[in-house]
Amino acid sequence: MADEAAVRQQAEVVRRLKQDKAEPDEIAKEVAKLLEMKAHLGGDEGKHKFVLKTPKGTRDYGPKQMAIRERVFSAIIACFKRHGAEVIDTPVFELKETLTGKYGEDSKLIYDLKDQGGELLSLRYDLTVPFARYLAMNKITNIKRYHIAKVYRRDNPAMTRGRYREFYQCDFDIAGQFDPMIPDAECLKIVQEILSDLQLGDFLIKMPWEEVRNEMVGEKGLSPEAADRIGEYVQLHGGMDLIEQLLQDPKLSQNKLAKEGLGDMKLLFEYLTLFGITGKISFDLSLARGLDYYTGVIYEAVLLQQENDHGEESVSVGSVAGGGRYDGLVGMFDPKGRKVPCVGISIGIERIFSILEQRVEASEEKIRTTETQVLVASAQKKLLEERLKLISELWDAGIKAEVLYKKNPKLLNQLQYCEDTGIPLVAIVGEQELKDGVVKLRVVATREEVNIRRESLVEEIRRRTNQL
Amino acid sequence: MADEAAVRQQAEVVRRLKQDKAEPDEIAKEVAKLLEMKAHLGGDEGKHKFVLKTPKGTRDYGPKQMAIRERVFSAIIACFKRHGAEVIDTPVFELKETLTGKYGEDSKLIYDLKDQGGELLSLRYDLTVPFARYLAMNKITNIKRYHIAKVYRRDNPAMTRGRYREFYQCDFDIAGQFDPMIPDAECLKIVQEILSDLQLGDFLIKMPWEEVRNEMVGEKGLSPEAADRIGEYVQLHGGMDLIEQLLQDPKLSQNKLAKEGLGDMKLLFEYLTLFGITGKISFDLSLARGLDYYTGVIYEAVLLQQENDHGEESVSVGSVAGGGRYDGLVGMFDPKGRKVPCVGISIGIERIFSILEQRVEASEEKIRTTETQVLVASAQKKLLEERLKLISELWDAGIKAEVLYKKNPKLLNQLQYCEDTGIPLVAIVGEQELKDGVVKLRVVATREEVNIRRESLVEEIRRRTNQL
Repeated sequence: MADEAAVRQQAEVVRRLKQDKAEPDEIAKEVAKLLEMKAHLGGDEGKHKFVLKTPKGTRDYGPKQMAIRERVFSAIIACFKRHGAEVIDTPVFELKETLTGKYGEDSKLIYDLKDQGGELLSLRYDLTVPFARYLAMNKITNIKRYHIAKVYRRDNPAMTRGRYREFYQCDFDIAGQFDPMIPDAECLKIVQEILSDLQLGDFLIKMPWEEVRNEMVGEKGLSPEAADRIGEYVQLHGGMDLIEQLLQDPKLSQNKLAKEGLGDMKLLFEYLTLFGITGKISFDLSLARGLDYYTGVIYEAVLLQQENDHGEESVSVGSVAGGGRYDGLVGMFDPKGRKVPCVGISIGIERIFSILEQRVEASEEKIRTTETQVLVASAQKKLLEERLKLISELWDAGIKAEVLYKKNPKLLNQLQYCEDTGIPLVAIVGEQELKDGVVKLRVVATREEVNIRRESLVEEIRRRTNQL
Repeated sequence: MADEAAVRQQAEVVRRLKQDKAEPDEIAKEVAKLLEMKAHLGGDEGKHKFVLKTPKGTRDYGPKQMAIRERVFSAIIACFKRHGAEVIDTPVFELKETLTGKYGEDSKLIYDLKDQGGELLSLRYDLTVPFARYLAMNKITNIKRYHIAKVYRRDNPAMTRGRYREFYQCDFDIAGQFDPMIPDAECLKIVQEILSDLQLGDFLIKMPWEEVRNEMVGEKGLSPEAADRIGEYVQLHGGMDLIEQLLQDPKLSQNKLAKEGLGDMKLLFEYLTLFGITGKISFDLSLARGLDYYTGVIYEAVLLQQENDHGEESVSVGSVAGGGRYDGLVGMFDPKGRKVPCVGISIGIERIFSILEQRVEASEEKIRTTETQVLVASAQKKLLEERLKLISELWDAGIKAEVLYKKNPKLLNQLQYCEDTGIPLVAIVGEQELKDGVVKLRVVATREEVNIRRESLVEEIRRRTNQL
């Protein structure tokens, strides 16, 4: 039995002969040998020592997972489009130096490509740095865009909780110099819309008090004591009332910078009130984000509680979205250091997939993985040609149709296929129907059968599958 | 001015202090220093020596390119779904050994990842080998699926002709043991449907005579002279007539294997006749494909001629789709060598993008890059709150709406924004309208303005943008 190495060797022989423009028959002889070896490769005689797996921290998506994934994406994309976003895409890898110095100690989690000559490359770690590189490179100072793509982190995977080494990010960002806090408020509105739309249960968008405090003490010149006093309030309340109270605090209102900072927060909460989502927003003392590039208020959306099928509380999935302001990042790429203020959000889609997959599994909901409207079938033998002719007509009319790849399939098997895959209609051709110029249309769910004139079939299928 | 290294160092200081649970005020002081450094990073004082580019052979897709890309994808996906395909996805990288021995001498074009400890990985070179790995790993013996994703080849790029190092493949494959040539015919039908649908001009699906000849001589035991005699016919005709003639050739019909091979070809052409696409199919003497895993007839679709805007013939873009049978590949992964016969096609989408992008550029067609239905605007100052309240209502009702991120934008600028981006409607709030409980709806194209009661606004916008 031929092994792979031998096949490769034989393939090389063929290539050389072709290269050397050898006698056609000599080539043909060696090609025949190659084909023979290929045909036997993987035959029952030989066992292979392949490790049959995907790389650590990655997974395949089968048709069922893809159906769930596409549902989630379409909800997210619909929201991004509702907010007027354009869409861009960037390469999966960047020059290594593009990513250098953007991720702090997380940099050690970046995947590098092997040096095979030429440029040194790394897989993207997020979509934010490539976005900033794109803006600087194309001198774009003003854009609202989304980007949905996979990113790569050599992290410790915890796949049951949706933590992978290859995972999707769904990012929405607004770049440009605008009046304060309007784009920031829209980002929070988007998080709220998406999480509500996906019906993931209660959630809260938390702003980390620690960062706000540090900003007040560090940048705004507030005394640590004053900041901590504010912190006590914050832990208790967290919203518009609080900000109002703080602004009336004589110590704070005397400090111009602190007043400005609080003014921005007040503005943000005013806009969030207009959007009707302040109930979903709160400060949090425990939150801290690792990435170096954030410059202003950052936030994170967490699901409050996740109940499983038996009413018991299951492990909290935690953060499902995060974002913030990164006004300095684009300037790091611009040759003249020109800044483009940016604010954005990133939806942590893998955790959402995990939740929805578990939910579907628990509910025994039957998920269709195709959209086929009709199976073209026959009750008698020798009708393959008629089936192919009919299905060709249907395809050309835009009907989603399938046919079994057998010359003479049993009707029972054809109906069973519809049951298994959820195809709602069967178009049955038989000798009598052909004579009469009709097709028998069967509704799988009700077993109802009705003869339809062939020229009306397309319209009838559309009508019955609500595609008119 | 702070440089990046200094910022990283400072970030490290902060992290250590946090880790060591240092005094809060000490942490705050160092965080303040860090924020200060970040804020100044990328300031006007400092020039950076970044090379602002994407890696060789790759490119970004801006909103315009994405709009074209999404049009093409949606045509292709619609076709794949029309034929009842499920969809899967696999990781962008595979274990290196998964790809070993599948691509012949093209293996040198595979991107390897750097050995950073753990598994040795490579970026996928196509979607066919990961598909076969997926089938063997999950013991799937029967599936019709599509997969649209990027693949990676360290090839010599020719970007103007659509040859990239990172590029999309759109694959449709049928795996399973079926009656001969039915799935093969469907694959060719799909190529024809997609190329017709995309209106790329005339095309031809070519089957390489060289491979057919080698198979006849090698596997079917035909004499080289007989095969070459056939070749002469083939060059002239190429279709059903030819096969009929060959089958009546006494020398051929005496040879059982040759007869079988020709019988398969006849069957294929019969099915293609039923599908009405034989006019698009022809043999070709010059075609030869490099990949090792093909086992049967292979084919390639070429555009016949591409005319540019001035009626002159431009460079031929050549192959836009290819495929064939690879019955041995899955068995190479199966521990017991179990075979799963497969046939499939791959649409070479990048060349199609190139053609369509050039066509759009030449035609001066205005491509919208958003789907926004209405801009929420105001004619007077101090109406930001009213604009935000209205747009929030529209978003919650599913209307695609935008607002300018300015407190007091000029009406002219708001209208100009609609002109620039193609937004068809403007919803104008003013003090009078607020009093009257109406919104002024302006049609950008005609400048028509009409007052709509606020509670009817959503319905009116849907009606006017055909979204009811």
